[in-house]
Amino acid sequence: MSRNLDILIRDMRVVTQLRRVAAVLNWDQETYMPPEGAQARADQISLVLSMSHARFTGPEFRRSLAELVDLPSGKVLEDGLAPEEVRLLQMAWRDWRRATALPVEFVGELARLTSESQHVWEQARRDNDFHLLAPYLEKIIEMKRQEADFLGYDDVPYDALLEDYEPGMTTAQLKTLFDELRPVLVDLVTRIQNADRPGRRELITAEFNEVRQWEFGMRVLGDMGYDLSRGRQDVSEHPFTTDFHPSDVRITTRLNRRDLTQGLFSTIHEGGHALYEQALNDRYFGTPLCEPISLGIHESQSRLWENYVGRSRPFWKHYYPQLQEHFPEPLKGVARDDFYAAINTVRPSPIRVEADEATYNLHIMLRFELEQAFINDHVAVKDLPAMWNAGTEEYLGITPIDDTEGILQDIHWSTGAIGYFPTYTLGNLYGRQFYEAACRQVKGLEDKIAQGDLKTLREWLRKHIHQVGRAKTAAELVQDITGGPLSAEPFTSYLEEKYGELYGI
Amino acid sequence: MSRNLDILIRDMRVVTQLRRVAAVLNWDQETYMPPEGAQARADQISLVLSMSHARFTGPEFRRSLAELVDLPSGKVLEDGLAPEEVRLLQMAWRDWRRATALPVEFVGELARLTSESQHVWEQARRDNDFHLLAPYLEKIIEMKRQEADFLGYDDVPYDALLEDYEPGMTTAQLKTLFDELRPVLVDLVTRIQNADRPGRRELITAEFNEVRQWEFGMRVLGDMGYDLSRGRQDVSEHPFTTDFHPSDVRITTRLNRRDLTQGLFSTIHEGGHALYEQALNDRYFGTPLCEPISLGIHESQSRLWENYVGRSRPFWKHYYPQLQEHFPEPLKGVARDDFYAAINTVRPSPIRVEADEATYNLHIMLRFELEQAFINDHVAVKDLPAMWNAGTEEYLGITPIDDTEGILQDIHWSTGAIGYFPTYTLGNLYGRQFYEAACRQVKGLEDKIAQGDLKTLREWLRKHIHQVGRAKTAAELVQDITGGPLSAEPFTSYLEEKYGELYGI
Repeated sequence: MSRNLDILIRDMRVVTQLRRVAAVLNWDQETYMPPEGAQARADQISLVLSMSHARFTGPEFRRSLAELVDLPSGKVLEDGLAPEEVRLLQMAWRDWRRATALPVEFVGELARLTSESQHVWEQARRDNDFHLLAPYLEKIIEMKRQEADFLGYDDVPYDALLEDYEPGMTTAQLKTLFDELRPVLVDLVTRIQNADRPGRRELITAEFNEVRQWEFGMRVLGDMGYDLSRGRQDVSEHPFTTDFHPSDVRITTRLNRRDLTQGLFSTIHEGGHALYEQALNDRYFGTPLCEPISLGIHESQSRLWENYVGRSRPFWKHYYPQLQEHFPEPLKGVARDDFYAAINTVRPSPIRVEADEATYNLHIMLRFELEQAFINDHVAVKDLPAMWNAGTEEYLGITPIDDTEGILQDIHWSTGAIGYFPTYTLGNLYGRQFYEAACRQVKGLEDKIAQGDLKTLREWLRKHIHQVGRAKTAAELVQDITGGPLSAEPFTSYLEEKYGELYGI
Repeated sequence: MSRNLDILIRDMRVVTQLRRVAAVLNWDQETYMPPEGAQARADQISLVLSMSHARFTGPEFRRSLAELVDLPSGKVLEDGLAPEEVRLLQMAWRDWRRATALPVEFVGELARLTSESQHVWEQARRDNDFHLLAPYLEKIIEMKRQEADFLGYDDVPYDALLEDYEPGMTTAQLKTLFDELRPVLVDLVTRIQNADRPGRRELITAEFNEVRQWEFGMRVLGDMGYDLSRGRQDVSEHPFTTDFHPSDVRITTRLNRRDLTQGLFSTIHEGGHALYEQALNDRYFGTPLCEPISLGIHESQSRLWENYVGRSRPFWKHYYPQLQEHFPEPLKGVARDDFYAAINTVRPSPIRVEADEATYNLHIMLRFELEQAFINDHVAVKDLPAMWNAGTEEYLGITPIDDTEGILQDIHWSTGAIGYFPTYTLGNLYGRQFYEAACRQVKGLEDKIAQGDLKTLREWLRKHIHQVGRAKTAAELVQDITGGPLSAEPFTSYLEEKYGELYGI
């Protein structure tokens, strides 16, 4: 390896390590921290992240990078590098350019604003009072527009924000995808609601012992290949995955005694994220080659495991007898088909995180449209709640009873995360394309799953996706794996077929 | 507050916060970290501590300090400061001078050496092979002698090392104390061994359910005033206390199904440490005024609670009926007096951490003498195991069966902690003096303890010791509280009386 590259990688490692230290502090905060420790913890996290940012945007890093890359253009100057090293430098330059495009004072002000507005959001949601949040949201939107100007964009400001979460994705491309999705989903949900067959959710909302829920989840995680010598699962209010290094990738779950699916599917979902992080190539730790490609690709891994595996007939062919052993009482006499229907019940809800596969992306579409409205089209914050409710009515046929159930349900905007929501839907689409590619390439994959062999799928994912890091873009990855571009079609066909059969429509 | 002082305190906070971040990383490592995360964690801790050190010894801190203190002499330059602010500056300068006295390369080399030698120590202990450790120990001793030279001392090099753990303490003063202690302890232990009454340890080495042990320990912690909204207890291999801020002070314990006392007394011991940290004055967080005075004073708090409260008759007058309720089976028919005898059994052991109150300080004396021998008198490392065994024979009447049970039992020297051991004995002495002062000043204190009121003692400790921070030196604190200097007499009288009564000697 070139000596200059060595030095740059050493500098990148420090930046990354400090971020991971902040991730440890955050993990502790969400799992074990005593309540009164919150203020000191916020100070610690802020200190460590600001030191990481200062290193990344400081003169030393700039010098190291300039030895290898022409800073204005991003052209790699060093000769004789391996192709993946060239990509490493391109990605490093891209990240550095975006980080240094924002003035230090701007970054500090936005951090303070969003830290405060998260507390305000909590109160606004508790009190069902959007007016509390509105001035903060106005300021955040204004600053995110400024951020887009600092970062630059070709078409609309929203493109610059999307780039944070899904590099290479554009508003125009997302619009095309959503235009394709929308009519299919609205139509499917309408037909399901008009169908004669009710969901069977009551079967899984009985009384499920939490210790047994935990044990069953841990068994599935083990079968998926989640390595507990390099990770662990804990309980937190909101399930999440966090990684400190590929050798320490942790997940959390939340168990609900009255709903088997909450804990189970959150465990499988976070397990899907964790497999990705555990399998990254740690030889390049600290660099883009040991980082996930995008939030959408990350989400493709969690959704693939949660929905395409975890809510499938082959999966439960193997696991349902075991689940019944774990819960002999509530599942007594419940046939596997009825259980399958129960975990795939479609029922429009005003709340995104409670949504099923068929309605979920309609929630995302609504948010995508509102984000464009207030970022690109300067729609006023005061008009957003009514737009939210109208959109929910249009897409899902229901109206939130209040703003807590409506526009105040998600924390994202209060944290400054604008442009994040679409990655959830992208995860569903990428995930379906990848899963179908895996089924084509691995003979009898679903038969293996039906026999409890989850490791074959995991190996395929590891080889084709996890180990790639950012050596490919999302678009290149999809092209290489599926032979074509990102497409909504496999996903819509899947939904049509699955729910057509389930609901007899 | 002076603007210059404000700036200095802000700089000190960053140094302290980074240390506390490292403490969080370490806490996680000892409690929940998956095994394969160890290497990445070591890198994180090392990075954060080196950044803290760099800040403390860097030009910015030096400039801030120089605005307030004459750097060569330590004389405070700023006028109009409150007395505690003057003390803050004196202590800050003292710490800074010691930190900057060591060359950066020296600090790095010692850190690498001791990190490696801890692993070697583990292997040497496992294999009972002192030869493995010897070359590392030689190098560590050589570097610690160099360290003493860098730091400077008046009398012997060991003084400079002591100063790290017990500021203001000298070898000469310790020798006087130990010369006073030694004959009393050796004589007491001999008489106990010749007494007719056996200890009753078999009573507490039955089968004790671990969940109930945990519950009982948590109850005592609560009664002591350990605030669980600002702390928590977990399980680790070696019990410890760690603090991230006075609002987040955590302890760990280790439970042994076959020995009630291990978990119980470690919980009370660490609880004593934690009360100190929780009660520090957080207005001055990050400065010496929100720091414990010394390891000896810290240990006085843990030993006071563990031994003078937790192994006393008044404590068990209240708690023994509750303990019997927790463990109806193993404690059935065990009289309170017999239980008291059991938890106060004196039985010489080659292992320090298994020692009782009467023999414990003999272990420390041996280590203190060896440390002087190899630091001041250049005794060769190869001669240490024989000296260790001879000393154990002389003081305790037993010889270790091998080096694992002898000189390899403690990790301290392998971590570079030379001069640390005496603080354990100092804790016993300070603690006894403080406890007796509390009994004199608070009427009926032991009657209160006998009624389960532990908070009165805790309030006394908080007011007279915990809230002081480093506004007083250890010597000043002892003088102010007891009206006299540090003395071994209260401790030896206590032992004579307690064990005279127990063993009828």
